[in-house]
Amino acid sequence: MSVGKRVGDVGIKVGELPSGPLGKIGDVPGVRVGHATIDEGNGRTGVTVLLPGGGDIFERKFEAASHVLNGFGKTAGLVQIDELGTLESPIAFTNTLNVGVVSDALVEYALDLDRLRGGRLTSVNPVVCECNDSYLNDIRSRFVRKEHVFEAIASASADFEEGGVGAGTGMSCHGLKGGIGSASRILGFDDGDYVLGMLVLSNHGLLRDLRVAGRRIGEELAGKMGAVNAVERGSCISVIATDLPLSSRQLGRLCRRVGVGLARLGSYLGHGSGEIAIAFSTANAAPNDSAADFRECRCLNEDRLDRVFRAVAECAEESVLNSMLAARRTVGFMGRSRESLADWYPGGAS
Amino acid sequence: MSVGKRVGDVGIKVGELPSGPLGKIGDVPGVRVGHATIDEGNGRTGVTVLLPGGGDIFERKFEAASHVLNGFGKTAGLVQIDELGTLESPIAFTNTLNVGVVSDALVEYALDLDRLRGGRLTSVNPVVCECNDSYLNDIRSRFVRKEHVFEAIASASADFEEGGVGAGTGMSCHGLKGGIGSASRILGFDDGDYVLGMLVLSNHGLLRDLRVAGRRIGEELAGKMGAVNAVERGSCISVIATDLPLSSRQLGRLCRRVGVGLARLGSYLGHGSGEIAIAFSTANAAPNDSAADFRECRCLNEDRLDRVFRAVAECAEESVLNSMLAARRTVGFMGRSRESLADWYPGGAS
Amino acid sequence: MSVGKRVGDVGIKVGELPSGPLGKIGDVPGVRVGHATIDEGNGRTGVTVLLPGGGDIFERKFEAASHVLNGFGKTAGLVQIDELGTLESPIAFTNTLNVGVVSDALVEYALDLDRLRGGRLTSVNPVVCECNDSYLNDIRSRFVRKEHVFEAIASASADFEEGGVGAGTGMSCHGLKGGIGSASRILGFDDGDYVLGMLVLSNHGLLRDLRVAGRRIGEELAGKMGAVNAVERGSCISVIATDLPLSSRQLGRLCRRVGVGLARLGSYLGHGSGEIAIAFSTANAAPNDSAADFRECRCLNEDRLDRVFRAVAECAEESVLNSMLAARRTVGFMGRSRESLADWYPGGAS
Amino acid sequence: MSVGKRVGDVGIKVGELPSGPLGKIGDVPGVRVGHATIDEGNGRTGVTVLLPGGGDIFERKFEAASHVLNGFGKTAGLVQIDELGTLESPIAFTNTLNVGVVSDALVEYALDLDRLRGGRLTSVNPVVCECNDSYLNDIRSRFVRKEHVFEAIASASADFEEGGVGAGTGMSCHGLKGGIGSASRILGFDDGDYVLGMLVLSNHGLLRDLRVAGRRIGEELAGKMGAVNAVERGSCISVIATDLPLSSRQLGRLCRRVGVGLARLGSYLGHGSGEIAIAFSTANAAPNDSAADFRECRCLNEDRLDRVFRAVAECAEESVLNSMLAARRTVGFMGRSRESLADWYPGGAS
Repeated sequence: MSVGKRVGDVGIKVGELPSGPLGKIGDVPGVRVGHATIDEGNGRTGVTVLLPGGGDIFERKFEAASHVLNGFGKTAGLVQIDELGTLESPIAFTNTLNVGVVSDALVEYALDLDRLRGGRLTSVNPVVCECNDSYLNDIRSRFVRKEHVFEAIASASADFEEGGVGAGTGMSCHGLKGGIGSASRILGFDDGDYVLGMLVLSNHGLLRDLRVAGRRIGEELAGKMGAVNAVERGSCISVIATDLPLSSRQLGRLCRRVGVGLARLGSYLGHGSGEIAIAFSTANAAPNDSAADFRECRCLNEDRLDRVFRAVAECAEESVLNSMLAARRTVGFMGRSRESLADWYPGGAS
Repeated sequence: MSVGKRVGDVGIKVGELPSGPLGKIGDVPGVRVGHATIDEGNGRTGVTVLLPGGGDIFERKFEAASHVLNGFGKTAGLVQIDELGTLESPIAFTNTLNVGVVSDALVEYALDLDRLRGGRLTSVNPVVCECNDSYLNDIRSRFVRKEHVFEAIASASADFEEGGVGAGTGMSCHGLKGGIGSASRILGFDDGDYVLGMLVLSNHGLLRDLRVAGRRIGEELAGKMGAVNAVERGSCISVIATDLPLSSRQLGRLCRRVGVGLARLGSYLGHGSGEIAIAFSTANAAPNDSAADFRECRCLNEDRLDRVFRAVAECAEESVLNSMLAARRTVGFMGRSRESLADWYPGGAS
Repeated sequence: MSVGKRVGDVGIKVGELPSGPLGKIGDVPGVRVGHATIDEGNGRTGVTVLLPGGGDIFERKFEAASHVLNGFGKTAGLVQIDELGTLESPIAFTNTLNVGVVSDALVEYALDLDRLRGGRLTSVNPVVCECNDSYLNDIRSRFVRKEHVFEAIASASADFEEGGVGAGTGMSCHGLKGGIGSASRILGFDDGDYVLGMLVLSNHGLLRDLRVAGRRIGEELAGKMGAVNAVERGSCISVIATDLPLSSRQLGRLCRRVGVGLARLGSYLGHGSGEIAIAFSTANAAPNDSAADFRECRCLNEDRLDRVFRAVAECAEESVLNSMLAARRTVGFMGRSRESLADWYPGGAS
Repeated sequence: MSVGKRVGDVGIKVGELPSGPLGKIGDVPGVRVGHATIDEGNGRTGVTVLLPGGGDIFERKFEAASHVLNGFGKTAGLVQIDELGTLESPIAFTNTLNVGVVSDALVEYALDLDRLRGGRLTSVNPVVCECNDSYLNDIRSRFVRKEHVFEAIASASADFEEGGVGAGTGMSCHGLKGGIGSASRILGFDDGDYVLGMLVLSNHGLLRDLRVAGRRIGEELAGKMGAVNAVERGSCISVIATDLPLSSRQLGRLCRRVGVGLARLGSYLGHGSGEIAIAFSTANAAPNDSAADFRECRCLNEDRLDRVFRAVAECAEESVLNSMLAARRTVGFMGRSRESLADWYPGGAS
């Protein structure tokens, strides 16, 4: 696996909570992420799929919630997550104009799995998130095919690549190259340690607004690089995973803290951006069919959430930074290019 | 206790599920309701208080949710219920212009209880719902005092009076007399029976739209009585209680079914009406302070909710009917009057 | 055009407001509906597309809103409608497992139109609603193709067919045949007449709960026909169109009244049902790109909404009835069948 | 008027947009703010009232919206703002346990005004926001009386005092003294300049998390001052006013950007905090009663909102900083004290 830079490589420490061993959402047991990258001709795009658990997510649904920080976006699947509080499908990321084909592929994937278990699935809620990569990618050519979704699923692992890969291939962030980024935090509670991880697809923000570790580096770079973007037409998708037993209501509260991390990097949640967060817990899975009327579950007491909120804010900030540091300089459609933060961060160039 | 008519007394059967022994929200163990009635001079108003449990609701908060069907209303306390998913106070009903004084009284009540336990309460979320009784009551005189709240609390019992009492004293419903009504349903699950109950404060609807048991009785009565109201300026407050273990998300789904019962009686949720529903479960109480990080709880499996939704719809329809049948003909402010459905329902007059 | 029965043909009059000339959503100027029907082998499904205006909806977006009455559904496109308050795409209906392919086709349609105007569209929000037709249709075979979407668009007209056509081909309603239905109402205001119309895809409800014009006909039919369905696993999609100048907030209030009509026919908004409403106004269109910072618009004063709410409730009830009366008895997948209400309604059989 | 420090006095410049002449919400024509301060014995509390316009707000309601960033709070009045999209009352701030009495006073104020116009008001929606000042104030003694509300209204002016005054008297922010703060921004559009202003009641955040102008000054101060608070039990109330013609939907989008400013100062929207935002526009007022069915209004085109969002983020950050800089060191209940940021900010002490 080609490995890009991460916050630690340029001397940035985000927040105070300890990171997990991978420092990625894959630190949450069972969570894996895979990519299919399209990087030829006018195509700079792809698909990234997050597999939420080791088992069959349709048969054992995970408690889940979503929150729309800014809804200039086409994400599919939130209606049912919000009503039922459960996730029953992998979560796919792609570009704006390929949500339909990726959604179709997730249905096919669910039907294929269902055949293996001899089931009779007639309904499934695919979750597909998107950002608009039309600056670097010829988005109108709609390069993504169903096969890219299956390829991304097949390649999924806990320790996945970040930056300009998969759905992140053509994304921009604060006028530089963005894409896939991740982070994790360890949270100790009275019966042991839990993990919270985040996966982002970053494609938002203006260069001049970028702040890193309190420094207005965006203004400095804009002075050197000229105006690279003037209007925010991006998005930032965030997925939070945890093995803490949280209810969908509590997970919704987590989602609402993602903006904290984005704001610290200089975003003000622009009009043209689809800032959407989804959170799920791998604890307390709900069986698809149960002979029993009731089930037992655990709950985190509400006043213990403060550290969890802090973990979300830290992971959001670190994930976006990782997405930018891991991404390499990219030249794409119409000869347009995005520089890498790794090359321009003080002391960051290799 | 003076007892008004109820659906059974005029031969109406609402739905198919069995009623609890009282046929009131008091069938849910621990739930009690009390009234303070103001019925002199120009005053036709009062306070009704629902005590959600036998214990100390602040120390053991109940899972809760709310839903605003139509928000032309001044209900206080919903912000925190929606965020934290818990109820930590009695629920009071009164008229529109006395929400502040009743809210103030509930804070005083909480502080008094807190002194008894030697606590240090500095925050509490009083829940106060309201309807506008200005047709029969000189609402601008604001007759309600804190003492009425304490009187209502002191008089609370599982088997309480319905109709034109407490907050219902001056309310109108479908151009007739409305007020306090209640109903309950028994729901059998695999480990025994549970109860769902509802309490309404009815003050909504036009006479000509009233339908009872499928019959357009409102049109018939409007023909006999003349136009009694032309513009809907009311409200309907509904509180659902149950001992079923439900999450706040599930309780929110219950709230969204209250409109079914209102619609069957002819309401179309008019512009000027504040249709608000609150639901709570007496199972799975959350401790105010806990030494432990986690607690165990039970959950009803989601696909078992259909019968619970049906119970909500039936209780809403029956509670409003009971509020109208129990209420007597009332003459109030400016000599205005509202007839009782009990007197005009075919075969209903005693 | 093959014409099925409608409410007037069986002597039912819903509500008090006058209907438009067609009695369909096509009474709203510019609104057209088209179908592509799949009705062979195991396939009983299809696509219905509503074209919201005569012009280019992407260039002149219509004010819009949505409301989820019950979110067990996979409707795509609501996130952006809710944020921006505008509709920029046709609205398509299909079955649950074909949302992706239909969404993909609407993107292709938008790109094709965009090429004609020499535009540079890189983002569009397709709106695709769905119900689950797996009782009569072999839904797992996913018969719908992009071409069906284009066929439905090409065939669109103001006076379209109802019942078991297009997306309605395999739908069931209250245990009988459901599908496409429509209704309209005329609303006179101080500067003339306006129209409100509704289009539904009905696929919800239990037979025994069906009530028509106050009569519990569902119980009667269940006695004759036996238990035809015991668990609600359907949905009901509703689209409201009007030429009244309403804001997205006001249109949201309209959406929340759709449940009134459903409840009057006996639905209690079952757990397994995706009850979703979308409303748009053809007045006050927002230009996609404007040289000016501001635009002028008109607003209906808020206290004039009561009649509009009544129109929504009446149209919802009448549209669902029309969907059932227009639909013919259908035999589908695995030899399963649904009877037509037109054949069983007292005095209804031809 | 005693004048505290402001951002400019300590050399801080927040953002890039120009400030209005006062640098306060009073730059929006017609908006005034008044205080009543309780500062004796164990009392460190009070009331602040914002008068939204020069005219009669009940007769000409302003377009409005709200957003709950975190709902651990008791704010009254949001239900109706969200439904009708209008503000019809002054907005009062006070402490958590006095919301009822302040709400009652606003009703009395509305009735008094109504008598002057010979009206027949029977319903009004008072808006009361709160934070918990129980660290410095003996909140259980509930010192606030109706008279404080009338005093605050009587003293209202465009150029009002900030810091530990009115409702801000006993508030804490990031472990230092907080309270009332304000800021404004000028926004030039194609027909001239508009103003956006903000008023905050700051009472949130931990000391160690405080960041000012990118500097982690909270960690530095925590090193010098010791742990001043460990658990966030505060709130931050924000009111946005503008003379830009915005719809309630657009104003809601503004509210959702308030968190950006809070996050930049180090907040992560703690569990125990009630972060609530209300926004209103003084353009396009809606008449309480109108003979006409329609009215004309202006709308800002949606893609012009980016600068407005930026103004919100800048005003939120600057308002909270102003609240802290203007507030003096305060010793209160039980001898507890809060230091002033003005005394500890590098170069800030006079």
